[in-house]
Amino acid sequence: MGVADLGLPVDVPSTALFTDHYELTMLQAALKAGTAERRSVFEVFTRRLPEGRRYGVVAGTGRVLDTVENFRFDAGVLGFLRERGVVDEETLQWLAAYRFGGDVWGYPEGEVYFPGSPVMRVEGSFAECVLLETVILSILNHDSAVAAAASRMASAAGDRPLIEMGARRTHELAAVAAARAAYIGGFATTSDLASGFRYGIPTVGTSAHAFTLLHDGERDAFRAQVDSLGRGTTLLVDTYDVTEAVRLAVEVAGPELGAVRIDSGDLLLIAHRVRQQLDRLGATDTKIIVTSDLDEYAIASLRAAPVDAYGVGTQLVTGSGHPTASMVYKLVARAESADPKAPLVPVAKRSSGGKTSMGGRKWAARRLDEHGVAEAEVIGSGPVPQELVDRQLPVQLIKGGQVVAREPLDVVRDRHAAARAGLPLSATQLSRGEPVIPTEYV
Amino acid sequence: MGVADLGLPVDVPSTALFTDHYELTMLQAALKAGTAERRSVFEVFTRRLPEGRRYGVVAGTGRVLDTVENFRFDAGVLGFLRERGVVDEETLQWLAAYRFGGDVWGYPEGEVYFPGSPVMRVEGSFAECVLLETVILSILNHDSAVAAAASRMASAAGDRPLIEMGARRTHELAAVAAARAAYIGGFATTSDLASGFRYGIPTVGTSAHAFTLLHDGERDAFRAQVDSLGRGTTLLVDTYDVTEAVRLAVEVAGPELGAVRIDSGDLLLIAHRVRQQLDRLGATDTKIIVTSDLDEYAIASLRAAPVDAYGVGTQLVTGSGHPTASMVYKLVARAESADPKAPLVPVAKRSSGGKTSMGGRKWAARRLDEHGVAEAEVIGSGPVPQELVDRQLPVQLIKGGQVVAREPLDVVRDRHAAARAGLPLSATQLSRGEPVIPTEYV
Repeated sequence: MGVADLGLPVDVPSTALFTDHYELTMLQAALKAGTAERRSVFEVFTRRLPEGRRYGVVAGTGRVLDTVENFRFDAGVLGFLRERGVVDEETLQWLAAYRFGGDVWGYPEGEVYFPGSPVMRVEGSFAECVLLETVILSILNHDSAVAAAASRMASAAGDRPLIEMGARRTHELAAVAAARAAYIGGFATTSDLASGFRYGIPTVGTSAHAFTLLHDGERDAFRAQVDSLGRGTTLLVDTYDVTEAVRLAVEVAGPELGAVRIDSGDLLLIAHRVRQQLDRLGATDTKIIVTSDLDEYAIASLRAAPVDAYGVGTQLVTGSGHPTASMVYKLVARAESADPKAPLVPVAKRSSGGKTSMGGRKWAARRLDEHGVAEAEVIGSGPVPQELVDRQLPVQLIKGGQVVAREPLDVVRDRHAAARAGLPLSATQLSRGEPVIPTEYV
Repeated sequence: MGVADLGLPVDVPSTALFTDHYELTMLQAALKAGTAERRSVFEVFTRRLPEGRRYGVVAGTGRVLDTVENFRFDAGVLGFLRERGVVDEETLQWLAAYRFGGDVWGYPEGEVYFPGSPVMRVEGSFAECVLLETVILSILNHDSAVAAAASRMASAAGDRPLIEMGARRTHELAAVAAARAAYIGGFATTSDLASGFRYGIPTVGTSAHAFTLLHDGERDAFRAQVDSLGRGTTLLVDTYDVTEAVRLAVEVAGPELGAVRIDSGDLLLIAHRVRQQLDRLGATDTKIIVTSDLDEYAIASLRAAPVDAYGVGTQLVTGSGHPTASMVYKLVARAESADPKAPLVPVAKRSSGGKTSMGGRKWAARRLDEHGVAEAEVIGSGPVPQELVDRQLPVQLIKGGQVVAREPLDVVRDRHAAARAGLPLSATQLSRGEPVIPTEYV
């Protein structure tokens, strides 16, 4: 049974269809011209960070690996391409046998990146590499955008945990990837069950206003919730009057009440009042969770408030103003002929318009100052200077078509925390500024 | 075989996991309290349009219907929920038998909406309706945001066709939904093969800069492309020097060349120059396609340029500054008891903070002026005034759990064009403003 038979609204038979039409027409033309097999190097990078951002966060790498492994043109896909006349029979034959057999290098997932950083490099024949452009960019652009926002929010939140709850504000499967990216960026938990299923991210949640409104008054609702979910649950206290709700909450659950959640109003003021009220009622261990349209600035502004956790939705899944990274996938070198031993020639677009880039296969390293703090992102296409050999960033992810660098999400999350901690302190300033370290081309 | 066995990076075993954790804990608590079966009415609406927007566009309805039909807790999902301890055994039993058996009404897909418009209404037991909150909002919030941007771009483009090419800028499956929403909003074609497969949207594309760079010069590249794809193809002319490329393009393909594409630089200026050059070369029927970081404003500014089609990526799939609609799913009425004949009681959140809303099941109608132009969105919870009975907007989409209003995408697309045409002319002004018609509560 193919996926399509399941009738899900998300059906596609394989990851090979997450591809722009022109990748296949380019393949067809190159096959006919005898250039399709030229050894090629494509690099993924961004010309600039989103305006005012100090650093980017590589996220989606693990999803790219899954996708490349499953990039297959099966009968369903080929039938579609034939019926639509997307490409000719010779090309369809070629696609039927397609398996990516090349190499992929990249910044390890969770690393930070800067303008020009070669966050991923794909090497193989032109034909096998060009097909992966769209899906690799989709994944990295989406996931990195969310992870960057998450990282800023995590910086702002300090030790207080962040709950990802944006599923309802983005495409239902983008939500799953967003929860993953948020976790990498430093979030602790998510509301999204699919991301718990798919990636093992801890899921949390207790109740919405609808639950209170369903019942004949807040007391009934709270009692129903505590009876079922226990005293450690989180009661939502802003359906009617917050002060009365907090009083009722402690009356019903006792001082063992786990937490109260505030989802509207002046959070700074209300959090202070609720804390005082909880303490007066003896519920000194009851936590306060706030969840109303937060972004990194709102989180930072609540630093002085007695808040124990933040739930973030819209602004997280939409990248806090920057819903996509601007990564591109560019051919930077290719062989002079289809001969596998032909030397590589650096190539680059040269016309005006700000879209030029540097040709040639590139190395990248992060230079540190005497205190071990990042000082520059150094990028070059010649030999790597001796003092930077050990500071190189790209690692091999796929070797001859085989994934060689799969890793648990917690490793990625820890790597991000370490990478961010290795940047100059101003990296975590929320105000707009330049990239926190310059990119130097050698 | 479950979807999960296919190893796709997008795997989830059913749409039932596109759900926030708290929907299930609310269900558990309501089951225990005996309130889960209270008849309930949930409405989807937005309190405001994105800043400055004149109207919203309902999109995603068809995907909601697919999703609700496939919302099932199968063994894989139940096993996950049990293992994680999300809910208790009684609740798992209930979920195993879950089929939505209620009614759904909504604005027909493609319709326009305004603040307060009840774009969807879900009726049934609290239990069966509350579970659908997250996924319904995910779909409508994402798809409507993209459709609204598409609609503005289509207005700006007038008769010139728009090509959706944003797949690389958004999550790979959000891209499929985005192409669908763009088509509803007025786009003609897409680059995204998956959306062609899934929704039958026409796909297009020819080549990227990588194709030119692969070859030993532009002449070789153009010849390879024309040899394979024919003279009617679109040649990309801004890899090196545009003037030289246009000359070569016509030399290689002849005046029958289908089109040239310009992807960088001052599009207004270059389009004029290229048009003159093409005409001088006798290629008077060769079209000009522009594709560089366009949004509705850039499209409008090119109205006087000799441009034949626009390709739009980033700004389309990110909703042109508003990547999500702010729709919410609120309990507006519920029965006094679990008795199926118990009367409905209007309910609404009442605390401060701008998140209050109007309780009660609502009707909605669009009042027209004497010229047949929309004049007001009229919403009420009492009887429908006689003069508005025939102008009511919601239609039944699901009846007793059965989808009753599936329709082809072209019908939806036509409906949107008609709905937009029925608004005051100022609806299509791109400048910021108030909603083009007021919402009146009766």
